[in-house]
Amino acid sequence: MPSYKAPLDDMRFILHDVFHAEKLWASMPATAEVSRDLADAVLEEAGKMVEGVMLPLNRSGDEEGCTWSDTGVATPSGFKEAFQLMAENGWTALSGNPAYGGQGMPKMLAVLFEEMMHSGNTSLALYTLLSNGACLCLDAHASEQLKALYLPKIYAGEWSGTMCLTEPHSGTDLGILRTRAEPQDDGSFAITGTKIFITGGEHDFNDNIIHLVLAKLPDAPAGSKGISLFLVPKFLVDENGNVGERNGVSCGSIEHKMGIKGSATCVMNFDGAKGWLIGEANQGLACMFTMMNYERVSIGLQGLGLGEISYQNAVAYARDRLQGRAASGVQNPAGNADPIIVHGDVRRMLMTMRALNEGGRALSAYLGMQLDIAKFSDDAAARAQADDRVALLTPVAKAFFTDRGLETCITGQQVFGGHGYIREWGMEQFVRDARIAQIYEGTNGIQALDLAGRKVVRNGGASAAAFVAEVRNWLEGETHGVLESVRAPLKNALNLLEQGTATLLEQAGNDPDAVNALAVEYLDLFGLVTYAWLWARMMVASADRGDRFGASKQVVGRFYFERLLPRADVLLRQMQAGSAAMMALAADDF
Amino acid sequence: MPSYKAPLDDMRFILHDVFHAEKLWASMPATAEVSRDLADAVLEEAGKMVEGVMLPLNRSGDEEGCTWSDTGVATPSGFKEAFQLMAENGWTALSGNPAYGGQGMPKMLAVLFEEMMHSGNTSLALYTLLSNGACLCLDAHASEQLKALYLPKIYAGEWSGTMCLTEPHSGTDLGILRTRAEPQDDGSFAITGTKIFITGGEHDFNDNIIHLVLAKLPDAPAGSKGISLFLVPKFLVDENGNVGERNGVSCGSIEHKMGIKGSATCVMNFDGAKGWLIGEANQGLACMFTMMNYERVSIGLQGLGLGEISYQNAVAYARDRLQGRAASGVQNPAGNADPIIVHGDVRRMLMTMRALNEGGRALSAYLGMQLDIAKFSDDAAARAQADDRVALLTPVAKAFFTDRGLETCITGQQVFGGHGYIREWGMEQFVRDARIAQIYEGTNGIQALDLAGRKVVRNGGASAAAFVAEVRNWLEGETHGVLESVRAPLKNALNLLEQGTATLLEQAGNDPDAVNALAVEYLDLFGLVTYAWLWARMMVASADRGDRFGASKQVVGRFYFERLLPRADVLLRQMQAGSAAMMALAADDF
Repeated sequence: MPSYKAPLDDMRFILHDVFHAEKLWASMPATAEVSRDLADAVLEEAGKMVEGVMLPLNRSGDEEGCTWSDTGVATPSGFKEAFQLMAENGWTALSGNPAYGGQGMPKMLAVLFEEMMHSGNTSLALYTLLSNGACLCLDAHASEQLKALYLPKIYAGEWSGTMCLTEPHSGTDLGILRTRAEPQDDGSFAITGTKIFITGGEHDFNDNIIHLVLAKLPDAPAGSKGISLFLVPKFLVDENGNVGERNGVSCGSIEHKMGIKGSATCVMNFDGAKGWLIGEANQGLACMFTMMNYERVSIGLQGLGLGEISYQNAVAYARDRLQGRAASGVQNPAGNADPIIVHGDVRRMLMTMRALNEGGRALSAYLGMQLDIAKFSDDAAARAQADDRVALLTPVAKAFFTDRGLETCITGQQVFGGHGYIREWGMEQFVRDARIAQIYEGTNGIQALDLAGRKVVRNGGASAAAFVAEVRNWLEGETHGVLESVRAPLKNALNLLEQGTATLLEQAGNDPDAVNALAVEYLDLFGLVTYAWLWARMMVASADRGDRFGASKQVVGRFYFERLLPRADVLLRQMQAGSAAMMALAADDF
Repeated sequence: MPSYKAPLDDMRFILHDVFHAEKLWASMPATAEVSRDLADAVLEEAGKMVEGVMLPLNRSGDEEGCTWSDTGVATPSGFKEAFQLMAENGWTALSGNPAYGGQGMPKMLAVLFEEMMHSGNTSLALYTLLSNGACLCLDAHASEQLKALYLPKIYAGEWSGTMCLTEPHSGTDLGILRTRAEPQDDGSFAITGTKIFITGGEHDFNDNIIHLVLAKLPDAPAGSKGISLFLVPKFLVDENGNVGERNGVSCGSIEHKMGIKGSATCVMNFDGAKGWLIGEANQGLACMFTMMNYERVSIGLQGLGLGEISYQNAVAYARDRLQGRAASGVQNPAGNADPIIVHGDVRRMLMTMRALNEGGRALSAYLGMQLDIAKFSDDAAARAQADDRVALLTPVAKAFFTDRGLETCITGQQVFGGHGYIREWGMEQFVRDARIAQIYEGTNGIQALDLAGRKVVRNGGASAAAFVAEVRNWLEGETHGVLESVRAPLKNALNLLEQGTATLLEQAGNDPDAVNALAVEYLDLFGLVTYAWLWARMMVASADRGDRFGASKQVVGRFYFERLLPRADVLLRQMQAGSAAMMALAADDF
């Protein structure tokens, strides 16, 4: 069974040495009480909880899965108790709004906790993450009355939350959804329709489930401009928060999936269920999108967290498994073979995993920091800049973390040879669990389209240029000697990214298919260049530690620049090919 | 449930128009009776059998899996009857030696059949492929007596065959295996030991299972030079082929795996089991290796076959699923959305899958052709050249087919969005089933090491240079106009490959870790360049057809050169980085 230790050293290094988080927190009233010691204590306790409570249920949860019956959904043994323990200790409200009982911790800390949870038990983590998402949305858009009634209970884990978007015929294209909302005399709405792929739509953890549901009002405009958002509880709640009679919403079945089997993925039937409008009528998509940047980073972290536990176990196996002799000569004369960590091919796999994981962790913290600045800073210009950076880098993080997460989990499985394919070793579960993160919360193709279309072409590349300027600025201001070996490749990478942006803008001006056809390569280019910058920052921040941690960072950073960043070159060439060959065949010719 | 039609048009195109197989077959006595009509009829019947017999059991086989009890292994419902039907119709002996009841069809045809079987039901296919492998090995190395006794029964599907190599502590490194063979007075041997990961080690298909087992004689030299090969039947067989008493071999358990769940993966316990030596004592590995080139291509075809069925179903879904509107304007005014095949991102996925599948199919036929020449040609020089090409390209095919196979299956799953993650759609099964092919029959890292070390460095790059010369020769001899757009990139690709070989040779001369550290990138480079050549050949061979098939080939070929071949550039740069950063960390620093 896989083991896991929260990578606290690396997390502290990123928070304190790379990004000097404490200074930022001290500068903003909402986070002023978060000291370095408090942050470290939170991470340490989080690690203990994940290792002790979540991890032990990960394999059994996968084997057991969820079970549907007409009385509800049974989650795997132990999940309910684990959730309740997490709730009692405040882990379901870490970055929740303190005005309603949340812990008020910065997102920069929450992303590290979320990574840990996905390492330990991604199925169990999803229940809390969807509740967090619902809270974010309610906090931003619901009436004071709804917030006061629902937020404290969800933060406390007494109730849970879901997001109900997808319908059988309507996934990426929400504009064609069919769920209807009929206004009632009491100011509520009667919601009718079927939603699918609802994570945690039904379960046995607690007393109530609060669904946030996209639906159309009778007089709504066609398409995505006619979508409204409603709060629909499983059990109706009186004004004092007492749970009353059952609402007209039920779980019709659950999906049998490739992975995340401990997470109940539900078909939810709304049959005139009582709901309340959140935000303005016909502004439902906009309401959803205010939380999207948080949620997409969280789902990105699923890829990163699974990549991390896969890496840790691949290292342990590679140190332990004896097979063959090192090319440079016998390393383990006492045994009849050397540990496979001596072989270049195994090294290549481990170094690739590590370089991608640590680069991703740095980006997740950077993005968490930008989300915090955008939300909490007193400085309007700083908020605006952080908002711009969040908008630009969130689709990159979601797609690049999860694509690299699958790559990393596959690589970790490969280190195990045939044993990696056997369920009891657990490495194949990480692959199956990671795979969904490339699909849900907007497929990675949609993330790429969001980046290339909405975030770059729509503003003529201004946000991308501002980001490149930030990196150039950093590079010009840094004089540490360790940068000498990577300064030229980083400059070259920035040039590639600029050329990529120019290529995208130019082709988009002439060819309506160009954005769609170039987007994935552009996002990958963006991700690789961003990791390069963060690796350079990590190399500088660790250069003078004089310890093995610092020395290792230099080696892994060098590996990133030599072995992984070169992937960026090919992406520009692929983009330059344009959409012609891609779009030339008739549908019947496939 | 996924559908499948054998890609007969493409197979016939490759056989007849690209490689002019009929001319080759007519030139060799062993294949002289194989006409174009016969080959086409075999493929057509094979397609019907796969579509009608194998495919319908694929999903149910995955859901049901195999079950072990102390009386044996139960395979999924219908597998036994399907196998027997296949056997009755000669499909278990397609390329078997006619002297013992085989059909004697060329490998060039068998590879296409094997691809189909892996598309239709890779778990069921594995039982026949392992039997084929055992027959190849027996045919090449066993005594006349053993061949006469065992081959006809296995070809007929009355008995099955296995290969027993791996032990719990000994996988890649067979030199440290522990299974012992004690000589007995009657000339047989008593085999004792435990083998794991034995495909079809136990099942309920037929009357006997013939295990080919690697073991060590008492006086054997240490390491891989002390391994011998033995035939160990489940039931002892008298000299007339009658099945008698149970031998001392039994299945202790089966593995619970990520995929290929219909294939029984067995722990086999040999407890003084009676066995007979195959070939010379201490030459067991060499005996195994004579069949390795056939088997590795067959396992490569698992990746290709799964990629093909994933492609076919992704196309069907992309034509059917309505979501969003085309960037270039509404394509389906009658519906509230366009089929997703109009979107660039979906096109990118489908075109990538198709270009990789068709490139792989061409390489599989090319390799089959070389295997046939090496085995059947009257011309010693032609045999030697074909042998050289087989040795060089087999590891490329095995690893590149299966790496691209996983990529293709993941891509096909992605086309389905959330539905791709749901078991009933079947797309996720292809991913799970494809994953093992990168691991078994020598991991893809081992294939790369075989290519870079044994096949390139060991002969100073002579085989690689001969292959590049063949491609250059072809390119210089071809004058068709369609080559103009791809001549320069193909030349450039050949130069890259030459530089890759030179880099490998140079680094290998200075650094013992270099081969291991550069091998995977070198293999990928080799694969990409080889596909480029075959795509150029396909473009030429289809240029003047004047039909949609030919026009599509031009488009897909162009896509390959523009979008996929550029991946080759980065590989050389990665190789040039050498092993330093990769090998720098101490094992404890991971």
